[in-house]
Amino acid sequence: VKVLWVYAHPEPRSLNGSLKTFALETLARAGGETQLSDLYAMKWNGAAGPDDFPQRDRSSRMQYMAASREAYESGTQSAEIEAEQKKLLWCDVVVLQFPLWWFSMPAILKGWVDRVFANGLAYGLTDAKWPGRSGRPLRYGDGVFQGRRAMLLVTTAGSESAMGSRGISGNIHDLLFPINHGILWYAGFTVVPPFLVLGTRDIRPERYNEITQALEKRLLEIARADPIPYRKQNAGDYDDGFELKPGLEGDSQGFGIHLRQMK
Amino acid sequence: VKVLWVYAHPEPRSLNGSLKTFALETLARAGGETQLSDLYAMKWNGAAGPDDFPQRDRSSRMQYMAASREAYESGTQSAEIEAEQKKLLWCDVVVLQFPLWWFSMPAILKGWVDRVFANGLAYGLTDAKWPGRSGRPLRYGDGVFQGRRAMLLVTTAGSESAMGSRGISGNIHDLLFPINHGILWYAGFTVVPPFLVLGTRDIRPERYNEITQALEKRLLEIARADPIPYRKQNAGDYDDGFELKPGLEGDSQGFGIHLRQMK
Repeated sequence: VKVLWVYAHPEPRSLNGSLKTFALETLARAGGETQLSDLYAMKWNGAAGPDDFPQRDRSSRMQYMAASREAYESGTQSAEIEAEQKKLLWCDVVVLQFPLWWFSMPAILKGWVDRVFANGLAYGLTDAKWPGRSGRPLRYGDGVFQGRRAMLLVTTAGSESAMGSRGISGNIHDLLFPINHGILWYAGFTVVPPFLVLGTRDIRPERYNEITQALEKRLLEIARADPIPYRKQNAGDYDDGFELKPGLEGDSQGFGIHLRQMK
Repeated sequence: VKVLWVYAHPEPRSLNGSLKTFALETLARAGGETQLSDLYAMKWNGAAGPDDFPQRDRSSRMQYMAASREAYESGTQSAEIEAEQKKLLWCDVVVLQFPLWWFSMPAILKGWVDRVFANGLAYGLTDAKWPGRSGRPLRYGDGVFQGRRAMLLVTTAGSESAMGSRGISGNIHDLLFPINHGILWYAGFTVVPPFLVLGTRDIRPERYNEITQALEKRLLEIARADPIPYRKQNAGDYDDGFELKPGLEGDSQGFGIHLRQMK
């Protein structure tokens, strides 16, 4: 299995740094191929902007989505964006590893998504066989990355209780919905449940061993693990306004309505 | 009223650029004082890391939260972080204006939060009067920013239906919960409902006029508008594990349980 490991932590001598090294060694031992995007080590520039399109005429107003499409299709994106896209198109599985900062990704990783997930690659595709002015969009389970898998590896000092279904921070799975569903599933990836390490404030050797054992198991199963059962946009559950058809949600509310009901 | 306007868009000749200019003029006409943090114009560095603490010994392992606390308390943070914190402590109201990118903030704005919301200012505070090893944390309605207000101004190409309560992207208010509740309310701000501009793909002059009229109204009322009724952490609704006490949620699920029930 070919794995792209995208890693966003500023300190190599951290829990995240140790887990990253452990994961890459585990995958290699199992015969996998890996590529690493260590965003801090690469000094990744996270600010999507005019520098992403070096050949664009700067005297005209920039509409980022349109500029992204034109540069993607004409092969004139900045070189570092193209390099990351090549890694994404090479891999079978992408893992995004990060500490949860303010209930989301560190900015450097958000800026990797903002810039690398270009128009024409990760969004903006339409299916000509659907009716309408420009066709129904290929997203949420469809798209270029269909057939590839994605997983988040997230650490946080927050406790199980504070990040659970009644916890004050909001359920961690709901907090990750904008990433798992809004970025990865949107772009077509099959998303497997995140590997979570909660309560990271004081991790002793015994617990660290438990974490690495659990991580090893998850990594070795990643190609066949049951995915999060998000609904596909274009498989009949959503109407022409992209609203869930009446009754399909069962007893669910909130983001939960976008999960297929399990028997 | 003193307003800090934090603005994250790479193109001045955009809808966002026009709305930013309109808002600052409107506030000034009404006798308000404003400061602007135009993050792209400032070339804001979004990557929280060792450069935030120029006097720290780099040979030792950096734990970001601990380093942030030490630098905040000793007045040794990087100058650009300190300058933004001064603006936050000056203002009565902070507005974060941004286009919704991948269902969240652009990286440059996330990196403003990651770096400016320091330990000792926006988190890490405890109330000695609560029992327990280190006191109950002052957050979610308590903290340094208590008494100040915050609002998001968000634009998105997404439609009302796709971003509504049954829309495939998830309800826009739930998508903004990690920001409104997890960042602003966490740090103590009173959060008023966001000013949303949906369906931005093709805005004609007539609609632009409607938008600016509505925005003017919201800005002139911002100091007395009803806030989002988030529950305070330390007012009795949450137990010692920070879980909502049984029964308080009524019929709500998901993030909705953290809103006080209205009569």
